[in-house]
Amino acid sequence: MAARIGPADVRLCLGTASVNCGPGPAVATIRFRDRRTLAVLSLDPVNRFGDAYSDGGVEVEGDLVAGLVSVNRALAKKPGPHWLSKLRSLVPHTPLRDRKAVEHHYDLGNDFYRLWLDEQMLYTCAYFDAPDRSLEAAQAAKMEHVCRKLGLKPGESVVEAGCGWGALALHMARHHGVSVRAYNLSSEQIAWARKEAQGQGLASRVEFIQKDYREIDGRCDAFVSVGMLEHVGLANYGVLADVIARTLDRDRGRGLLHFIGRDWPEPLDSWISRRIFPGAYPPTLDETFRGVFVPAKLSVVDVENLRPHYALTLRHWRERYERAVEDGRVSFDERFRRMWRLYLAGSEAAFRTGWLQLFQVVFAPSGSGGMPETRAGLYDAPEGLTWNEPTF
Amino acid sequence: MAARIGPADVRLCLGTASVNCGPGPAVATIRFRDRRTLAVLSLDPVNRFGDAYSDGGVEVEGDLVAGLVSVNRALAKKPGPHWLSKLRSLVPHTPLRDRKAVEHHYDLGNDFYRLWLDEQMLYTCAYFDAPDRSLEAAQAAKMEHVCRKLGLKPGESVVEAGCGWGALALHMARHHGVSVRAYNLSSEQIAWARKEAQGQGLASRVEFIQKDYREIDGRCDAFVSVGMLEHVGLANYGVLADVIARTLDRDRGRGLLHFIGRDWPEPLDSWISRRIFPGAYPPTLDETFRGVFVPAKLSVVDVENLRPHYALTLRHWRERYERAVEDGRVSFDERFRRMWRLYLAGSEAAFRTGWLQLFQVVFAPSGSGGMPETRAGLYDAPEGLTWNEPTF
Repeated sequence: MAARIGPADVRLCLGTASVNCGPGPAVATIRFRDRRTLAVLSLDPVNRFGDAYSDGGVEVEGDLVAGLVSVNRALAKKPGPHWLSKLRSLVPHTPLRDRKAVEHHYDLGNDFYRLWLDEQMLYTCAYFDAPDRSLEAAQAAKMEHVCRKLGLKPGESVVEAGCGWGALALHMARHHGVSVRAYNLSSEQIAWARKEAQGQGLASRVEFIQKDYREIDGRCDAFVSVGMLEHVGLANYGVLADVIARTLDRDRGRGLLHFIGRDWPEPLDSWISRRIFPGAYPPTLDETFRGVFVPAKLSVVDVENLRPHYALTLRHWRERYERAVEDGRVSFDERFRRMWRLYLAGSEAAFRTGWLQLFQVVFAPSGSGGMPETRAGLYDAPEGLTWNEPTF
Repeated sequence: MAARIGPADVRLCLGTASVNCGPGPAVATIRFRDRRTLAVLSLDPVNRFGDAYSDGGVEVEGDLVAGLVSVNRALAKKPGPHWLSKLRSLVPHTPLRDRKAVEHHYDLGNDFYRLWLDEQMLYTCAYFDAPDRSLEAAQAAKMEHVCRKLGLKPGESVVEAGCGWGALALHMARHHGVSVRAYNLSSEQIAWARKEAQGQGLASRVEFIQKDYREIDGRCDAFVSVGMLEHVGLANYGVLADVIARTLDRDRGRGLLHFIGRDWPEPLDSWISRRIFPGAYPPTLDETFRGVFVPAKLSVVDVENLRPHYALTLRHWRERYERAVEDGRVSFDERFRRMWRLYLAGSEAAFRTGWLQLFQVVFAPSGSGGMPETRAGLYDAPEGLTWNEPTF
């Protein structure tokens, strides 16, 4: 088993027997319930660990994230099955399949997500413009960071593809005076978002549409999608390209994609993909550019990698989640509670070790006139970047 | 002929006959010397225009850049020969072939380049942190922009691949206290750079090495290459990946590639490629990431598109060049003088229309600890970005 994992700084225990995987002091201890669990895991630790942990067949003592980080680093030295990634990513995504995947994850119930997300229910990477920001402040800063990159002006029109519980759409309308058409497949989320729009008096300027991104129509000045590309599937990037090309104004339009990505193609962890996010695939930048930007004739204006910000976001979520578990506020069974703990801790470990990246890509139609002269305004101008024709 | 070009805002003239290509007022007039020139150009305007202009078979009256911009925009609506791009880019670059290409362009003589480059002889895109900067100030700002993105610290080691006349290497050593090994194939440039290093008392900290990038050895904290990738050739990206992977420190290393690129694959203008830059190929971001970053296991940290800055840089160069021509300081013959005018004007037009992009890509070894928490320091911290382990 130790040989399968490689030289990670973890200790493996079965009954009174134990062994250190790595040469250094162990940051966590992995305890197996019985010989059978150990045998099953020895054959295929990467794919079997998630279920074994959820079922209680495996216990992790000490720092769960640090233990996973150490195991990730050790595994990273073994080559991954590159072709598998391609194979899985090419499974066709139909609107029906995507609707089921969305229901699997996002319709667990608003009450569950309220236990550990911020007040505005943002379920994507926050932006910590200072390290000591609260999760609430960092999510507001993320929304502003997106709006300021796009240089939104009052009266402009925005399309948002995959709007979650609607916080960004409402933020853009309230703070930047734009009108928004926001698309999402999840009925629970759309219901929540519409109620918020009513309550905030924004219903006339923010339209929440329960449709697939393929059904986006009309034109817009800005196209934004935060946390949806991971669920589109490589095989559909051409469809997304068509949607952006026909939607975005070619003279003054600009857009932003915010997504979990990879440094090189690899399948999503098989356990995450089975239990947490069916059909998800975090793409590389080159897959994204080749699949979406080249066919849509888009020009890349700016890319920012916010990897450490997602690790910290996940830490905030997990701390809130664990408090909710301790207080008996998580109504699901113990298996689910352990599964969700591992998902949050494993994701934090993946961003810390660089298995996952968080890319924000700003783009414009190729050759369009509008482009910020420099990015300084993003940090020091009240309204962020200016997307006019450069003065030079 | 007008049909070949499409609806550009230019007027075509032969003797006393003339016709407008587009519906709008003409920004420039293209005058043909005789029927034969018109006939040759009608068959293949894209490939024949450069030589015809250089030979005086064609004259452009009015605004040369505006005329080229208009023709570019009209041609952009016609699909380009995508496969040709691939074909040409795969012509093998051998060290000998690269040496000849370098000699063709860069060994025209330092005296020639001194006539129209800035004092420090930077022959790459400047950075206009304010639009009214002089070329000298904007080139200094570009060097600082690069150093601040890399967060260079005194005592660190830098490898520069393709160092031109050495200005950036000298700037890094003088203003950031690093030691630099800078590589270049051009004997004229290397001689100049070594003399500068001596004169500035930096010879002990900046080593100029007349070798191919393939021969780079040793280790470094930062790897930087400004304006070389265009000359490497797609087929050699794997070699460059090997060089970066074996050179860059995997724990605290980071790097920057600055290069002319494309939004989608296309061959370099055939005239530029024949007369000006043999073997050059401006890659797309996805070609760069797939060819260099994925095999070298690098993570993209930041991408900035400086397209308008190169248009303005080229305008500065052309204005200085035209003054030198007027003053009789350009010793080459009229054909060369016209060729160079068209090259500078055509390049400006290409950046203005978005045919060419200028990408600065900052990267680090995948999963390395050092990474700036945000990019704000690039604009407001005295030393630029900090590449420590994030505090969160």
